[in-house]
Amino acid sequence: MTSQPEIHPLDQATRLVQLSDGLLSGHTLPAYGNMVGPFGGVIAATLLNAVLRHPDRQGAPLVLTVNFVAPITAKEFQIQVQPVRTNRSTQHWSMTLTQDEAVAATATAVFANRRDTWSATDAKCPDAPAWESLDCVPPVEGIAFTRCYEMRYIHGGTLGEGSSPGDPHSRTSLWMRDSPPRPLDFLSLAALCDLFIPRLFVRRKRIVPIGTVSMTAYFHVDGHALQIQGTHPVLGFARASHFGKGYHDQVAEIWGTGGILLATSHQIVYFKE
Amino acid sequence: MTSQPEIHPLDQATRLVQLSDGLLSGHTLPAYGNMVGPFGGVIAATLLNAVLRHPDRQGAPLVLTVNFVAPITAKEFQIQVQPVRTNRSTQHWSMTLTQDEAVAATATAVFANRRDTWSATDAKCPDAPAWESLDCVPPVEGIAFTRCYEMRYIHGGTLGEGSSPGDPHSRTSLWMRDSPPRPLDFLSLAALCDLFIPRLFVRRKRIVPIGTVSMTAYFHVDGHALQIQGTHPVLGFARASHFGKGYHDQVAEIWGTGGILLATSHQIVYFKE
Repeated sequence: MTSQPEIHPLDQATRLVQLSDGLLSGHTLPAYGNMVGPFGGVIAATLLNAVLRHPDRQGAPLVLTVNFVAPITAKEFQIQVQPVRTNRSTQHWSMTLTQDEAVAATATAVFANRRDTWSATDAKCPDAPAWESLDCVPPVEGIAFTRCYEMRYIHGGTLGEGSSPGDPHSRTSLWMRDSPPRPLDFLSLAALCDLFIPRLFVRRKRIVPIGTVSMTAYFHVDGHALQIQGTHPVLGFARASHFGKGYHDQVAEIWGTGGILLATSHQIVYFKE
Repeated sequence: MTSQPEIHPLDQATRLVQLSDGLLSGHTLPAYGNMVGPFGGVIAATLLNAVLRHPDRQGAPLVLTVNFVAPITAKEFQIQVQPVRTNRSTQHWSMTLTQDEAVAATATAVFANRRDTWSATDAKCPDAPAWESLDCVPPVEGIAFTRCYEMRYIHGGTLGEGSSPGDPHSRTSLWMRDSPPRPLDFLSLAALCDLFIPRLFVRRKRIVPIGTVSMTAYFHVDGHALQIQGTHPVLGFARASHFGKGYHDQVAEIWGTGGILLATSHQIVYFKE
């Protein structure tokens, strides 16, 4: 009897096959399904993967911006990846995701050769009880991708939890990890940037139609720091600045073990309320 | 004797001439020169203007992302503007700025038909003394664009001002306005998003080589709110989350009169230190 090494669902979901020079093919994985279509964080990771696996790629991800242009259907898609320019220390990329020859997402990325410099973290790592002391929230019925993550909320988890009527807020902090555990890399980190429950649900204590329009992730560490993080859970913190005229923003931080800021991310979200 | 209405320098700097369908030509304006090349904020505004003046444009700017791919030279440039997709409430755009046929900047924008919805501001407008009670900082010798803005710092203005040795920080708050005054619109608001002194200068109390790699602005209001703001100064607040491995981020807010959050913006900046 032989056993094959099991491929983690995230690696299956972000897998791309080369069709021709700069044109790749992928397929959504039911395990990462959202209420409608696939989980956007895994689409972001897949777009990043198109660059990561490109033979001309230099350095590590510094910035990823994804614009969700149209609803993505659970099926095959194509990604066109184009190197825009290679500088001494940065490399710029442009990506387009299509389904049935219609654009469903556009993205840009900057990769960089990171080097040691003076360093400081001015953001404050949120206080958090130990991962082991908290309960994992059960997966949400009908939202497959919630089974792909262990999420242990500190506050702002479910609808308004931890918020008192006199102090409405849109803040969430939680421990997060891939399930089954998978050593952290830029793919999983990009997806985690989009894992936060929509700010409007937290703020309004109810579920309304929402959709991310655009998200940007800034990566503050190199691959070595991610290797050290390994399968240890990361601490996520998110808040909104403003809700109004059909859209709200989200400002998020992903913290690694020992108060290392791994990534910050931002998004703007459509809502109907 | 007749007098022609004077064209504001920002309108001159962001002016575009159509060369062919989707291809525009512009020219940097010496008034908005930076230490090397043009002020990035005005480049961002010019890229946004390529969409604003497009005959197929619908709605108002919601998101603008600009990637600074290579140094921009003070001379003519071309912008290719491409409508990616028009949905019922959003419209996606892609822009490329070239000089001598080499890409110098890429950008994406999402425009939206904003409608009245439930609204709330969770970010806290920073306390600030009245604009009239503060001194305008003098323009910086050799940095032309600093003459194009009235900047009245509350703290974190010049090198480490307002920061004590025991409390190093990267926060700046200031009143800002175009000089000469110009009614606020999306062009000037986009440029203001990039007006903050680099976070590293504030944090390290010295000037080192820096350059914005990528910036994103989220617009939280429609054109009507900008009309009401008019030529009143806006309040800017910026901070950094992390400095390290050659890059640092910036998180910024632009507040209008009466504590209205006009825009939030984010950028990642290269530094040599």
